[in-house]
Amino acid sequence: MEWLDNVKWDDKGLVPVIAQELGSKDVLMFAWMNREALQKTAELGRAVYYSRSRERLWFKGESSGHVQTVHEIRLDCDNDVVLLQVTQQAGTDEHGEPIPSIACHTGRHSCFFSVLKDGHWQSVDPVLKDPATIYK
Amino acid sequence: MEWLDNVKWDDKGLVPVIAQELGSKDVLMFAWMNREALQKTAELGRAVYYSRSRERLWFKGESSGHVQTVHEIRLDCDNDVVLLQVTQQAGTDEHGEPIPSIACHTGRHSCFFSVLKDGHWQSVDPVLKDPATIYK
Repeated sequence: MEWLDNVKWDDKGLVPVIAQELGSKDVLMFAWMNREALQKTAELGRAVYYSRSRERLWFKGESSGHVQTVHEIRLDCDNDVVLLQVTQQAGTDEHGEPIPSIACHTGRHSCFFSVLKDGHWQSVDPVLKDPATIYK
Repeated sequence: MEWLDNVKWDDKGLVPVIAQELGSKDVLMFAWMNREALQKTAELGRAVYYSRSRERLWFKGESSGHVQTVHEIRLDCDNDVVLLQVTQQAGTDEHGEPIPSIACHTGRHSCFFSVLKDGHWQSVDPVLKDPATIYK
């Protein structure tokens, strides 16, 4: 597929990917995709990354249930970075109430919860769900 | 400096960086930093990247004048991706009128101006300034 050929894959066959939340426009996370992951993401309309540590496709939400629905896929001016517009699902709590958007494996909304303040990284965003209850 | 040691630099001594515009929350661009670039960014309050092609520090705006003022520096849960909140300067036009925020070397607001539509990447955002007048 030509659109996949247009992407400049790095020497490991990967491309960096930024996931931004539709609506809030918060940057939720950063990950990597290989060709198959990007193809599946477009095909399924849900984020499929490539896990470098596990060396396999990672269907975001496969164990947490925190699936990302993909609304738009963008490519940058150098054809080597992808930006996704996503809706971040986070399931419901024990009372069946919807849980606010959680992208991070720490149970936080976004993976970018540490801010540099006075020469230290300080965690500034709350844990919305105990990770122990996310990964059962 | 300890906060620099906390960053997980990759095997080339680099870390991926996302620049997001304060206010609009648009993702403007993606680049890389080495230790010195991140230190200088924090010190100067302006974005300093590491250019992999030129193999040297790249003071964003050094040739275009399109400096990025940095308001916040965040780190992700794995300590290996940086997110900046920036104000993107773009100078003034020939009449002295301020030019809207331009981060991309193509003269566009954001580097992510190509959208995947019907199996093709389509450029959807306007060129705000002729690149020939940016890089004199």
